[in-house]
Amino acid sequence: MTDRAFQDYYPDPLSYCYGCGRLNEQGLKIKSYWDGEETVARFHPKPYHTAMPGYVYGGLIASLIDCHGTGTAAAAAYRAQGRPMDTAPPLRFVTASLHVDYLRPTPLGVPLEVRGRVKEIKGRKVVVSATVAANGEICAQGEVVAVQMPEHLLKDDKR
Amino acid sequence: MTDRAFQDYYPDPLSYCYGCGRLNEQGLKIKSYWDGEETVARFHPKPYHTAMPGYVYGGLIASLIDCHGTGTAAAAAYRAQGRPMDTAPPLRFVTASLHVDYLRPTPLGVPLEVRGRVKEIKGRKVVVSATVAANGEICAQGEVVAVQMPEHLLKDDKR
Repeated sequence: MTDRAFQDYYPDPLSYCYGCGRLNEQGLKIKSYWDGEETVARFHPKPYHTAMPGYVYGGLIASLIDCHGTGTAAAAAYRAQGRPMDTAPPLRFVTASLHVDYLRPTPLGVPLEVRGRVKEIKGRKVVVSATVAANGEICAQGEVVAVQMPEHLLKDDKR
Repeated sequence: MTDRAFQDYYPDPLSYCYGCGRLNEQGLKIKSYWDGEETVARFHPKPYHTAMPGYVYGGLIASLIDCHGTGTAAAAAYRAQGRPMDTAPPLRFVTASLHVDYLRPTPLGVPLEVRGRVKEIKGRKVVVSATVAANGEICAQGEVVAVQMPEHLLKDDKR
């Protein structure tokens, strides 16, 4: 793992994502890294990220898979082009579809480990599968179909 | 539509969901209602619920579909049993799987309308399809497979 997360390379105007933008003060600030051929993000839910008492909210788990998925897609696209993430032009991905299977209740109060694997890179599309584990046990698994953001949105700053 | 949302009938110990619990002070407090054979929830994202600038965060959209889906599942299960939601025993659902297709960027700054339709009720399982619209245009569609919460969790209060 390196010190700088995938999301830390996103251009400033695209760094306000509630899930993973480093400039969104209220956001979750999800951070993803390479770990060999897989990617990993670690996240400690807040006490109020409750589903039922003692367990993590499913919408948060979906958010972790979503942002880790698009982050992994971006990192994989740079890697496929053989260039580091701080080189131009920027590659940023949005979610076309998100699927999550909740395998068991995810305990609240421990760090979660999100792991991503690139299933497919084809043109502007990257498919990433992901798991979310607590205490070493996989509690949810999912898939993100990410597509490269259109260039006009990369230049757009409506913030 | 009635004044009381599906989520307002959830027993107190199960009303701390970050998405829709009426007792979660930090939560989103998603509220769902019948509207004929469909269900509806209206939600106004906060300015910080950003994906890219000017658009709504996909994880929030997933959360809306998730909680509106499980709420719709509960309401549909009561309706199928021919009894009001304030009668015992309580029926509360959790998400087994969640799928979201993001059809177009969802504009930030306007109220969102989430609509649910019951696709299937079978045993302890309810399948709900949902759409999320902004300015009358559907921006995302999804599906929730909800399963009735095991009785031991209904009695458990780990909060």
